[in-house]
Amino acid sequence: MAKTDVTLGVDIGGTNTAFGFVDSHGNCLAESSIATHAHEEAPRLFERLNQAVDELYSGISGKCNFIGIGIGAPNANYYKGTVEQPPNLRWGTVNVLELVRKYYNLPAAITNDANAAAIGEMQFGAARGMKDFIVITLGTGLGSGIVVNGSLVYGHDGFAGEIGHTIYDPEGRQCGCGRKGCLETYASASGICRTVYELICNTTLQSELRGVCFDSLTAKMIFEAAKKGDRLALEAFDFTGKVLGIKLCDAVAHTSPEAIILFGGLAASGSLIFEPVQRYMEKYMLNIFKNKVKLLPSGLTMGNTAILGASALIWNELKKK
Amino acid sequence: MAKTDVTLGVDIGGTNTAFGFVDSHGNCLAESSIATHAHEEAPRLFERLNQAVDELYSGISGKCNFIGIGIGAPNANYYKGTVEQPPNLRWGTVNVLELVRKYYNLPAAITNDANAAAIGEMQFGAARGMKDFIVITLGTGLGSGIVVNGSLVYGHDGFAGEIGHTIYDPEGRQCGCGRKGCLETYASASGICRTVYELICNTTLQSELRGVCFDSLTAKMIFEAAKKGDRLALEAFDFTGKVLGIKLCDAVAHTSPEAIILFGGLAASGSLIFEPVQRYMEKYMLNIFKNKVKLLPSGLTMGNTAILGASALIWNELKKK
Repeated sequence: MAKTDVTLGVDIGGTNTAFGFVDSHGNCLAESSIATHAHEEAPRLFERLNQAVDELYSGISGKCNFIGIGIGAPNANYYKGTVEQPPNLRWGTVNVLELVRKYYNLPAAITNDANAAAIGEMQFGAARGMKDFIVITLGTGLGSGIVVNGSLVYGHDGFAGEIGHTIYDPEGRQCGCGRKGCLETYASASGICRTVYELICNTTLQSELRGVCFDSLTAKMIFEAAKKGDRLALEAFDFTGKVLGIKLCDAVAHTSPEAIILFGGLAASGSLIFEPVQRYMEKYMLNIFKNKVKLLPSGLTMGNTAILGASALIWNELKKK
Repeated sequence: MAKTDVTLGVDIGGTNTAFGFVDSHGNCLAESSIATHAHEEAPRLFERLNQAVDELYSGISGKCNFIGIGIGAPNANYYKGTVEQPPNLRWGTVNVLELVRKYYNLPAAITNDANAAAIGEMQFGAARGMKDFIVITLGTGLGSGIVVNGSLVYGHDGFAGEIGHTIYDPEGRQCGCGRKGCLETYASASGICRTVYELICNTTLQSELRGVCFDSLTAKMIFEAAKKGDRLALEAFDFTGKVLGIKLCDAVAHTSPEAIILFGGLAASGSLIFEPVQRYMEKYMLNIFKNKVKLLPSGLTMGNTAILGASALIWNELKKK
């Protein structure tokens, strides 16, 4: 029987590094994870990763050919192969592709999590067959991957696609980046928590969330409250949708995508977030784009989406050749 | 002697239609123009244009080969070859490339003025050798052309690059597009006139512009006043630079360009506009992009820039083959 080509997808997170072998159709044939140990130097992580990957591969090597490695990591630079000052790891700037080449003589590529998600959607998910689309990842922050004419936009320096750091209000909320009013201070898991506290302050709406201190508040609690009809929680989703909808109109005015795909934790709130985003997006959309741009949930539903995205990155590179 | 290949660049404006023959180095060997007659049907314009082009070409045909046609026009759709409901012409939607093919059996392409300007800068101007840049045209409105990885971004429907209609303030100035607070209501020749009137209202700054009624006020008058040190006029340039600078930070966060090129009437105000745009752009720029993005004046200085841009469009297409 012919062997199946597989690529390794690796997702380096602040807590865990997940990895798996994925075929060209997006089926994950084997997956595992190791602790990242954020305080550790990068070479040590890749040493441990190599052992764990070899072990995982030994279980499927009889029926698979291992042909490439794709990596998703914070602050990754596609052009240079580096990870630069990742916020949750004590690495400084590290050339990850060089580290990988110590262990594997295979094609390898790296990009940030949101870009990997975008390529994952194009290869295996909701953007199959599309040439122009944007993926928005709604996690603790807001990441984005922009695809134009079938290729991910990396820009001059490899750092394109920072829609989370477009400015909604130059005098607005303090952002972790040092500026004020960035989109991700409103439209993200942490952003909606801030919005709940703004609404607690500015409105007299009754809410079970008035009994929760800020340090304990999570987007999931807001979701649960909204599902039960809590008006303040519903208002928080509405405001989140308004800010995101307005800034997505700006994104559409830049690259005119066929679709925008919402991905990640907050996107799992379903219609609670999709309905207001869609409504405000159409309200504020320039005429020529009105009712044209699809707003879609992620199509990566089979297993670990970050592994699929990282694997898709290298599948996409291999197809270019 | 070998003949020189030339393409025809055509710029269809509301008042005049300018055209000229341009070689592959951006030298315009012959140019002319005819009245557009905005009330006239499109086929009649192209009939008259054909006669005028033939006449112009007869003067250079001994030394030139006519190998393609590029057209810049308002609301042009690159993919379809159409002009759709142009604001200053009573055309409705017209397939311009079909009209052109009646007269010429040559490769032809059409796009809007700002996209043509961007390709002109790439072929002949300030963006030679660049793969990622943005051209902003500051005329009555604000147009833009975005280049990613060496190709103009047309997007899913051909209408990408509407940075003039990104939203600076959702509750801001009424825009001709029907929405409020679009960038072009601030950063354009008409926008700076509105800003002067806002400053006349909100400040007590002395200014010679207080003696000018709104219908008579032009960006050129504001430029002349600012050159003489008129504080209100200077303040108007500063505010224009602030709004444009902030929204250019958003544009950078999308596609991470190597340079942004300011083009058109208001850009000719030189440091009066470049200085505040640059200052506010760096002030509001995300760290990873700070002090990286060049802000440049147009490099299309030889003659009619709109003809050069339209010609560059088809030179660029011919190179793809």
